[in-house]
Amino acid sequence: MAYSSSRKEPDQVQILSGTMDGITTGSPIGMAVYNRDANSKAYDPIKRLFRPGHADITYFRKYGLRDHRGGGRSSARETVSRVAAGVVAQAVLDQSEVKVTAYTVELAGVRVKRIDLDEVDKNEFRSPDPEAVPEMRASLARIREAGDSAGGIVEIKVRNCPPGLGEPVFDKLDADLAKAVMSIGAVKAVEIGAGIEVAGLLGSENNDPITPDGFASNRAGGILGGISNGDEIIIRAAVKPIPSIAIEQQTVDLDFNPATITVEGRHDVSAIPRINPVCRAMVRLVLADHLLRQQTVRK
Amino acid sequence: MAYSSSRKEPDQVQILSGTMDGITTGSPIGMAVYNRDANSKAYDPIKRLFRPGHADITYFRKYGLRDHRGGGRSSARETVSRVAAGVVAQAVLDQSEVKVTAYTVELAGVRVKRIDLDEVDKNEFRSPDPEAVPEMRASLARIREAGDSAGGIVEIKVRNCPPGLGEPVFDKLDADLAKAVMSIGAVKAVEIGAGIEVAGLLGSENNDPITPDGFASNRAGGILGGISNGDEIIIRAAVKPIPSIAIEQQTVDLDFNPATITVEGRHDVSAIPRINPVCRAMVRLVLADHLLRQQTVRK
Amino acid sequence: MAYSSSRKEPDQVQILSGTMDGITTGSPIGMAVYNRDANSKAYDPIKRLFRPGHADITYFRKYGLRDHRGGGRSSARETVSRVAAGVVAQAVLDQSEVKVTAYTVELAGVRVKRIDLDEVDKNEFRSPDPEAVPEMRASLARIREAGDSAGGIVEIKVRNCPPGLGEPVFDKLDADLAKAVMSIGAVKAVEIGAGIEVAGLLGSENNDPITPDGFASNRAGGILGGISNGDEIIIRAAVKPIPSIAIEQQTVDLDFNPATITVEGRHDVSAIPRINPVCRAMVRLVLADHLLRQQTVRK
Amino acid sequence: MAYSSSRKEPDQVQILSGTMDGITTGSPIGMAVYNRDANSKAYDPIKRLFRPGHADITYFRKYGLRDHRGGGRSSARETVSRVAAGVVAQAVLDQSEVKVTAYTVELAGVRVKRIDLDEVDKNEFRSPDPEAVPEMRASLARIREAGDSAGGIVEIKVRNCPPGLGEPVFDKLDADLAKAVMSIGAVKAVEIGAGIEVAGLLGSENNDPITPDGFASNRAGGILGGISNGDEIIIRAAVKPIPSIAIEQQTVDLDFNPATITVEGRHDVSAIPRINPVCRAMVRLVLADHLLRQQTVRK
Repeated sequence: MAYSSSRKEPDQVQILSGTMDGITTGSPIGMAVYNRDANSKAYDPIKRLFRPGHADITYFRKYGLRDHRGGGRSSARETVSRVAAGVVAQAVLDQSEVKVTAYTVELAGVRVKRIDLDEVDKNEFRSPDPEAVPEMRASLARIREAGDSAGGIVEIKVRNCPPGLGEPVFDKLDADLAKAVMSIGAVKAVEIGAGIEVAGLLGSENNDPITPDGFASNRAGGILGGISNGDEIIIRAAVKPIPSIAIEQQTVDLDFNPATITVEGRHDVSAIPRINPVCRAMVRLVLADHLLRQQTVRK
Repeated sequence: MAYSSSRKEPDQVQILSGTMDGITTGSPIGMAVYNRDANSKAYDPIKRLFRPGHADITYFRKYGLRDHRGGGRSSARETVSRVAAGVVAQAVLDQSEVKVTAYTVELAGVRVKRIDLDEVDKNEFRSPDPEAVPEMRASLARIREAGDSAGGIVEIKVRNCPPGLGEPVFDKLDADLAKAVMSIGAVKAVEIGAGIEVAGLLGSENNDPITPDGFASNRAGGILGGISNGDEIIIRAAVKPIPSIAIEQQTVDLDFNPATITVEGRHDVSAIPRINPVCRAMVRLVLADHLLRQQTVRK
Repeated sequence: MAYSSSRKEPDQVQILSGTMDGITTGSPIGMAVYNRDANSKAYDPIKRLFRPGHADITYFRKYGLRDHRGGGRSSARETVSRVAAGVVAQAVLDQSEVKVTAYTVELAGVRVKRIDLDEVDKNEFRSPDPEAVPEMRASLARIREAGDSAGGIVEIKVRNCPPGLGEPVFDKLDADLAKAVMSIGAVKAVEIGAGIEVAGLLGSENNDPITPDGFASNRAGGILGGISNGDEIIIRAAVKPIPSIAIEQQTVDLDFNPATITVEGRHDVSAIPRINPVCRAMVRLVLADHLLRQQTVRK
Repeated sequence: MAYSSSRKEPDQVQILSGTMDGITTGSPIGMAVYNRDANSKAYDPIKRLFRPGHADITYFRKYGLRDHRGGGRSSARETVSRVAAGVVAQAVLDQSEVKVTAYTVELAGVRVKRIDLDEVDKNEFRSPDPEAVPEMRASLARIREAGDSAGGIVEIKVRNCPPGLGEPVFDKLDADLAKAVMSIGAVKAVEIGAGIEVAGLLGSENNDPITPDGFASNRAGGILGGISNGDEIIIRAAVKPIPSIAIEQQTVDLDFNPATITVEGRHDVSAIPRINPVCRAMVRLVLADHLLRQQTVRK
């Protein structure tokens, strides 16, 4: 039983420019991924309806038209370009041995209880807690059965990030990370370190004590004043349930008359875990940019 | 009894360029606010110590030096420039009658139970729920007494925002808002609409039904696919407790030897409500930018 | 007899994204032109030699490597992307009926004596003066015979440009045009209006008198203070001779030892007239950008 | 006898932010120069007239208003901010011992015959040829007597610039220099190296031969393919005569009715040599930016 799309998309990247004999030439790197399994016809039933929770109504309000087919910019397919670019960014990060991992800390109502990075690649949900996996599987199966969809939370951890990344005013590292991660479709909240919990903490609880060996805790999530502090960077993204569901919903048509919609088709139950590499890629892009900028600083 | 700083800073703005006879000339607008009450001497005791939870250690790691005085870029004083710029942005928003309000939804462990915008200006915490005010006051008094500090949550609401603001890929409206709000010192999480709660919702619960009169709910927080949908835009910022506290903390000195630090001085107990107009200003700046951009779209 | 390259390059553009059913969707427009006639082997003789007047030595100094083949970023083939983008820009300009034309005012030592735009498309050099054509043809034939190459001057004229385009400080219209045109390989000077001649004029000669019907002359070239004045915009680009010539030249090899080089192959005698549409495209891109920006100005 | 303005403007720079104890802190550097000798009343006679050759008509067409006083953005006073920023940029260049000089190669119809940088600071026109000075002086005196104004050419020379500066596509070094220099009010043409003369040269004449010791000539002006080649960078700016002249000119008033204008007041006869440090500053800014960028390149 599969929890993500059954579409066959080989995702083969074609490099259009910027490399020769396996190394970059310094020119812009262009890449394209051709979608071989597009089926625009499948979208005909909803051609004249706006999907609740979906971007097609805002596109329509913005431009007076919309691309109702699956391949538009509000499709998750758009993220393949982010992932491809993230691979290039990681090549920059490799030079400083910076490592970026993304894993699932909540899915379909199930929260992980521990984080073991060695477990992430061993299950279909990228859960760092193997004991949460059967429960996630059962929960998703129930939701799929009901024609519904589920949300969750992805955490991105950056190890071995040097201190000093981030500009003190206009391009703070946490600000750039927030923009990058929030720009991913379906993400509705971004947290750094203790994140939303800081609201309820006292200063004496939230401040990470400093020792000669580093910080004694990491509620800051590796960033202070918009600059990396050398500790692990921790980012969390709250991912909303996929809006396209088989349950009937109230909507309007292109003339803004009342209508109902039931979205059949090849949709995932949850954007997780497909969104995880996208989150990782966006973080890599920001870090590579700031790592290069930091090379211009004279210490 | 005062909960925010007793420093006397008149905050008078001097316009350096860009206006004549009360209207803008089209040239860049330059403004300066001179700090008349600076007291650099007050910072001498911590000249050789890093404050836990504070940016001065990351500045030091980035540049090999730091401005230990109160006026540096990691001081909250930096935010006066954001507030001044936000006033100019609001003049742009006024043309479309867009209204931006910021209020406190959590402070020092006390959550508001309702949101009445008419109440916001009537109490010292900018609480939209007058019944929460005495509890906030008591909680802050206890924390101040203990030499500690407190965090909270600011919500920003945008009314009358036209649909269509936000670019579909590189400068999504929610992404730009996240960057703008996360760039404010002390903010560790940014939520749009239902925010972090979306992680636990089903698609059928999270999707806002569409009716001919608009959306039947607003879990999207007014933004779908990075573009405003015409509904109220809702943003929340989690604000960490002020790191400078009178309680003794573990730290290191400039030579990275162990030390303890106790920060006396003229510090607020919480960044809230002083941070509220800063949040509002950052949102105004993003919206004004996107409103102008949207004027370039042909519909 | 042909004066430009005999290579067969169909220059077919493939639109990768951003359009549907013949109109733009608001998403970024991606285009690719595949080079079907590449012959990297042809460049093998110069694989270890730097061509005088060519960018390959600076690439090597910058990156420690270079793409010696014809398709690198220092090849004129790079300009096809500019031309393709310029077509999209023109679609924006069409809405305001802005017209951009590029023609040859000097080639291989021959200057035109008059400018008749109706003549430009009627000869192989895009000369606005038909009487200069035979002389250009003869001069180029002599130069080709000698294994040498020739330079010239392209003038770009913008008709029907509305007044007001250009930002008063950071993105002046003439500054942006200068950057755009100078960014074209082979261009070594950019003039606006009377251009270099203004150096020898008196104020009373150079100032264009203003009448109720417009300017009585156009030495300003349509731009005053970085803003379009409503008159025709006139830009000239000085184009250097193509560096790849069959005449033996002094150079060094990759180890910086002395060497000589003779570049055989399929090279043009002059970048003109192939560079003309590139100049036109770059001007279109700048104007489209500023035309959209100007829609944000409230008058 | 003075050839430049008799206004007393002390040009004292006030540093608003970004430095402490004489060194930069990494925060943005803000500076202000207050104009103590403004006399807005002096501009009253031309309050309702557009000056030919001046930006005030384009400002009016762009914004529907204008700052008729001397301090607007179309005043040469705006350039003080460029010069101040250029000093900061030079501090970056100093680390690589890059030197930037600007001198006059043509003024009021008089061309220099040789370039001796040691002479530049020794005469009031910043002429590198002392023998041209008396002739320049006489020519300017005649023009001033007639109530007219004069143009000229400034050359900027960069010595000791490392090879490799400049991006291969979007921010070529020559393109950025062209934008920077063309953005200076009064500049109507920008040349690199042999500049406009390349149009008339053959490839065999224009190509700079390469030897193990460097280039045997410098018609490229130190830039090939948008990247510095290690040789001296040579830029020339053609400067138009100052538009404000005492000779009566034809113009229109704010209602676009015919009028005549005679601009009395404290105007220079030529923007040269006051514009020279502005040219130098703009080149410094571009080079500092590219020098920092180049530190991100891995070779």
